[in-house]
Formats: sequence, structure tokens, C-alpha cells
Amino acid sequence: MTTCNRRSTVHPNDPSLRSFIPVDPSSDFPIQNLPYGVFSANGLAPRVGVAIGAYVLDLWALAQECRIDVVEPGVFAEPSLNAFMALGPDVWSKTRARISELLRHDNPELRDNTQLRDRALVPMTDARLHLPFQVAGYTDFYSSKEHATNVGVMFRGKDNALQPNWLHMPIGYNGRASTVVVSGTKVRRPRGQLKPPTADVPSFSPCKRLDFELEMGVVVGQPSQMGEMLTEAQAEAMIFGFVLLNDWSARDIQQWEYVPLGPFQAKAFATSIGPWVVTREALEPFRVHGPEQDPKPLPYLQQRNAQNYDLELDVALRAPGTSAEQTLCRTNFKYMYWSSVQQLMHHASSGCAMNVGDLLGSGTISGPGKDQRGSLLEISWNGTEPVELAGGIKRSFLEDGDSLVMRGWCQGDGYRVGFGAVEGTITPAE
Amino acid sequence: MTTCNRRSTVHPNDPSLRSFIPVDPSSDFPIQNLPYGVFSANGLAPRVGVAIGAYVLDLWALAQECRIDVVEPGVFAEPSLNAFMALGPDVWSKTRARISELLRHDNPELRDNTQLRDRALVPMTDARLHLPFQVAGYTDFYSSKEHATNVGVMFRGKDNALQPNWLHMPIGYNGRASTVVVSGTKVRRPRGQLKPPTADVPSFSPCKRLDFELEMGVVVGQPSQMGEMLTEAQAEAMIFGFVLLNDWSARDIQQWEYVPLGPFQAKAFATSIGPWVVTREALEPFRVHGPEQDPKPLPYLQQRNAQNYDLELDVALRAPGTSAEQTLCRTNFKYMYWSSVQQLMHHASSGCAMNVGDLLGSGTISGPGKDQRGSLLEISWNGTEPVELAGGIKRSFLEDGDSLVMRGWCQGDGYRVGFGAVEGTITPAE
Repeated sequence: MTTCNRRSTVHPNDPSLRSFIPVDPSSDFPIQNLPYGVFSANGLAPRVGVAIGAYVLDLWALAQECRIDVVEPGVFAEPSLNAFMALGPDVWSKTRARISELLRHDNPELRDNTQLRDRALVPMTDARLHLPFQVAGYTDFYSSKEHATNVGVMFRGKDNALQPNWLHMPIGYNGRASTVVVSGTKVRRPRGQLKPPTADVPSFSPCKRLDFELEMGVVVGQPSQMGEMLTEAQAEAMIFGFVLLNDWSARDIQQWEYVPLGPFQAKAFATSIGPWVVTREALEPFRVHGPEQDPKPLPYLQQRNAQNYDLELDVALRAPGTSAEQTLCRTNFKYMYWSSVQQLMHHASSGCAMNVGDLLGSGTISGPGKDQRGSLLEISWNGTEPVELAGGIKRSFLEDGDSLVMRGWCQGDGYRVGFGAVEGTITPAE
Repeated sequence: MTTCNRRSTVHPNDPSLRSFIPVDPSSDFPIQNLPYGVFSANGLAPRVGVAIGAYVLDLWALAQECRIDVVEPGVFAEPSLNAFMALGPDVWSKTRARISELLRHDNPELRDNTQLRDRALVPMTDARLHLPFQVAGYTDFYSSKEHATNVGVMFRGKDNALQPNWLHMPIGYNGRASTVVVSGTKVRRPRGQLKPPTADVPSFSPCKRLDFELEMGVVVGQPSQMGEMLTEAQAEAMIFGFVLLNDWSARDIQQWEYVPLGPFQAKAFATSIGPWVVTREALEPFRVHGPEQDPKPLPYLQQRNAQNYDLELDVALRAPGTSAEQTLCRTNFKYMYWSSVQQLMHHASSGCAMNVGDLLGSGTISGPGKDQRGSLLEISWNGTEPVELAGGIKRSFLEDGDSLVMRGWCQGDGYRVGFGAVEGTITPAE
């Protein structure tokens, strides 16, 4: 393969880097980001791409022209990121560095090659975005102290808000991988057994308390062995990147089914993720320490590094028949009590093997403020305080036709490293 | 492909059928069974086989010689049953009928072809058995009323033994697919957070209350669509077969972690399944009605057909340094309150998509008798009544070096349709 004329070795995260592709400062996809996704366009099969400004860069097209000599080109012809992720962190870094190099304003290699540009740069408006990776296992955590406290106060009162185990480990459960879908997939209102406190017996009917949960998802890019634990460094190195995640929840189904084995059908009908996996490396400049952990975690959960991210999040509702998005909450990923690295260390601690393509939901991300609550359950305080939006729109829970949109980004100086959006619209149960 | 000289159309379940391969009446693998597995032998790669007497019939070898003209031969060269299962119930039936035909005592086709016999019949002692299918998702139910009652009495007392939801639906949770392993795989004692009631704070240490759970696993062979429910007939048709399943459980880890999201690391370290998938069709003659369900299930869970199986089960312990197996319990799959078909109907009821290769654990199978309890938790009544075995061996829970062996079979008139065994040995945590 050709190795082409290399630029100087500026780190792909360098804020001074510019691409020859114009990128608005408000865009989620400057040259400092380079998130991976799977797209199809122009009648061609789904393959791996990277978002840059208003374009998708077709990595398979570049690889076929020997422009990415870091990996076997075939990994980019796959309809998922799994094969690429399996190659490991060193390859992830080198590939990103090479893509950054190709997109730099001062590199003529792609910039001045009209034929290659036409082939490799697909306007985002022409691309269909697919589920970016094959989800091996889906685990959902519950790691925001504010969220766990809000829910606890609602259901058990102030004095017993947090369960006794909550401060000692990242509480989580296995979710259902088969219904993890990409942004834009319609979500049918689930049916299930409901038994309101006033009813003697349960009935089977469409969920009446349909909710979202604002989460981030960790994408695991390297496996661990059954029987083996993970150090902080090992866990960190296994994380390929992050996605926006909406953990749709049927509160009434959950209420009746969850004792003693946890949420099951209440969460199994759909989980939506964003189409772009922002790499751990791209988020590096935005690392921050999380809240102080008291009591100090047990040694197997201790972390030396700052493992949280200063990542702004917002959630908006588009009611049926309207086009305006109305904000439901704004919060930040930095508030999470248990970090993704701690979640991964805990997950493997029993000897549980992790796989390439595992997805770990952070748990609902709520902040300390009332306007920072990441679910309607909290925003409407279990339906007792419906949220009032412009145009006379009132919501305790989601209604048929509602579209829910989540966005997330890290704000740099003059640029943002963003995730795009994860959107889903509710269709009727029947 | 050649279609060869067809025999008369005797159903493969016919008790009068005999194979030219000698099969002892106590063997699990007469011609009426023909369970599928994945094996390797003689330095060849894992492929699909069928158990007959003391042999594995190499389906890939037969298919290469055009002896199985029902499917594309390549599906038998796969290291899992998934590709074959994906072809659907009609193909499953036709393939089994053809294999039965090839093995009949009055068919010279394979019987008198020494070269083909040498190639296609591998002595079981020469074969290594692998995980028979790639586990897409693993779900574990809790569907024995006797087991749920025993556990309830132990932890909540007689008056609140069953949770209010238990009689209304098959309670279950998502398990961890990445650690489903085949019989013979060693199981490392898990580590985890333990907080006995006497301790103020949890510690992280090897599990002290390691247990087995005797279960059957349903192997889902056909997918269902996200958003769609299943009728009884649809659910039944999706079931490819059944395996023995040991849902290893760390009782002490579970006790501290499970509120409110259910079992997580307590069950994530290992789940062992038998190497042979006995088809639903082979179990057909052994269908029986389950216990009466009172209250009557909601319409979406009602079943017209007998969906339980008269399937005998036993569990034995081989203590370290001994060779004798000592029986811990004998019970029967027929006692299950919720059938596998009901579990599948419930699983899809919210709109949860099912996939080829999904594995559904039945839940611990306990019977009404004291000697029919399917876990040490119940047998030793939470450690208060250790079981005393020959040779002065006493057990409340499993110790390092213990081997646990589960067997299951349906008893016909002069033959049995069996599952072989699922075995696992505990190795120390460190």
C-alpha cells in the first residue's frame, strides 16, 4: 500500500487543526472529532464512515484507493464497526491520526483530488445511517446519584431514598440487546401487564406511562477473558467510544414486574442509540473528575484518573403536528457518580467475560438542578407535576406521535466534539 | 444432489424404529432422539453432528457426499447450529427424517458403505463437544412454583412466599450470554461484594455460598419481529429444542446486589449448558399438561396444548478426590408452572424481538418433594441443614474441586430420549 506524503505529527485532538472541508463552529463534527458510524448511500451497501462537517467520509472508498494503510481495507466494508474495533486501541489511534491527516486543510492528497473527493465525501443528507455496531450484550447501569435519589424519594420517601448497596458499587442489570436500534427507528408503544394500586388484578394493555431515559452508552471495543478481573488501565483501554442512548421505559409495566428480578419487559421493547460513536480519544480533552465518592470504593473499584467527561446534554420533545422542539432538560455527563471505567471493572469483577460490541448504558443522567432531570418520571414527579410546554402542550409521560430528541457535545474553544442526535417517535400500540 | 433410495415414511419418533448402530436401552441417544451438537475430531474443525448410540454422526461428511439433500451442505460445516436453525421448522423436520432414514437398520445406504461409515461415524470418545450454538441472548426465568415458594418462605416467611406478580406472568430477567459455556468447562469461583447481615460494610472476596440451579434451556431457532406479539402456535414453532442448563449462582453476591434491579454479577460468571440440543420434535411423545394455572392466565398467555414435558432430571455431586457421583436431587420438568411456550409469549409481549440462538432458562426446577429440590439453597435450606453424603461428605454450598453433574431424559417404552449430561467443576477463585 502507498504511504503517501505524511504531514507533521500534530495530534488529531489539537484545537488548532483545520480541515479543508468547511465546518461551522456549531457543528458536532469538526476535524477534532471524527466519530465512526455505518452508512449507506447511492445504492451501495452499508460500510464504515466518519462524520466531518456536513459530510460522511467513506472509509471503504479511501481504503480501496490505498489511502488508509493502517488496517486491512475489508474492515471498512463491513456493515458494523465490530471488525475494526476488534483490532485494538493502537489501530484505533493510528487510523484516526491518518484520517485526520487526510482531512487537514494543508494536505492536498484528498483536498485536490476531485475524483477521490467525489467518491469519498458523501453529503450527510444523502446518507442513511445504520446501527453502528452489532450489539453483543447490552447492560444498563443506574449510576447517577441524583437520579437514584429522585426515584428513591418518590417511591420510598426521603429517609430511604438510596438503597444500602448503591454507594458501594455501580448497580446495573442485563438489558436486551435484540432491540437496540439506531436513531430514527420508530418505537411502538409497548403492551404489558399493568396493575395500578387501585386494581385487584392486572390487565394486559398498552403502556400508559411511557418514558425516556437520557443516558450515554459505552461501546466496548476489546474483549476480556471469563474468570479475569480488570484493572483501571485495562478497562479504560477496552473502551472504544461513546454513543447517545435513550433507554425507553414503560414505568407501569416495570412497577408490576420488577420485584424480585428487576426490569424485564418494561425495558425490552426498544433502546435507541445515536448513529455516531465518538471515540474515547476524541473525548480526552474533556476529562474531568467525577463527584467525590464517599465511602471510598473498595480497592477493585478505585480509579486514579479523571474518568468523567464534561459533556453537555439536552433533551427535547417534538409534539405531534408541531415542528418546534421544546426543551425538557439540560444536564451534563460529568455529574455521574460511578464512571464508565468503574462500571466496566465491576462488570468483569465476578469473572464475567466482556465482548467486542458490548454496550453499557450509564443509567439516567440527572443533575442537581430541577431542570437537569433526565426522565419524565422525575420531571413530572411521577405524573403529579405535568410539564407545561409552549402551545398548551402538557406531558406527564410520552404520547403517541411524540418525538424525543437527545443531543450531546463537549464544548472546546471555538469547536465542539458532538454526538449528533438520537431521535425516536412513538407509534401507537395497535 | 442425489435423492437416494427412500425408505417408507415411518415417523422418526416411531418407537419401533431401530438403527443398524447398536444402542443400549439405557443410552440417551437412540434413533428416536437424534439430538444436534457441534463437535471436532481427528484434527478437523468444529462442525454439526448428531448423537446416535456411542457415536457422533458427522453431518458435514454426509452432506459433502450428497447424502442429506434437504439443505445446503455448508450449514453443517459451521461451528454452531445457528445457520441450520435459521432455516426453520420445515427444514428441521425434513432433515431429521432424512437422518433417521440413513440410520435405520433396514437401510443399506450408510450401513453397508464402509468408507462412508468410517468417515461419518465418529466414536463419541474421540470427539470434543463444543458450545452447540452461538447464544444471541440469554434470558432466565423463575417458573417453578415449588422453587419460588421455597425461596420465598426462606427469605420472607410462609405468608408472603410468592410475590404478588408471580401467579400472573412468567417472571424472568436478562442473563449474560457471554459466559454461557458448554459442559466440561471449568468454572472459577466468582469474586464479588459480600455483606453478611453481621457486617457493617461490604468486602470484596471469593463467593462463600456458591450454588447450582437445575434448569432446562429452550433454544430459540426462529426470530420474531420487534413490536410484534406471538400466538401460542407461533411461539411453539420457534422452539428448535432444549438443553440441560446449570445456572451457577453466587447466593451471597446476589443477596447484597439484587435490590432493586435484580441478579447481575451473582449470575454473570458462568452458565453451563449440555452439548446436545434435543429437538422439540423428539420430545413430542412426552408432552404432558402442566399444573393447573389458577388464576387463569391473561389471554395473551393462555395455551390450548399440553406444553410441559415428562422429563426426568437428576443432579449429582462428585466431591474432590472421589470418583463416585452422589445424588443431590431427582425431579421432573413436568412440574413447571409456566411452560416454555408461555415464557416465549411473555418475552415477546412488549414488542421484544427474539433472535435465532436465544436461550431461555426455565428457572430452577424443583418438585413437590423434599428430595426434588433443584438447588443447594433449597436442599440445605439456606445452609441451615447441610446435606450429608456418603464418605462423611457434607455440603451447604459448593466447595472448590466439586464437580456437579446434571442429567435428563424422557423414558419411552424400551428406550429413552436423553440429553447426556452437563458437568462443571469448581476451581478456586485465586
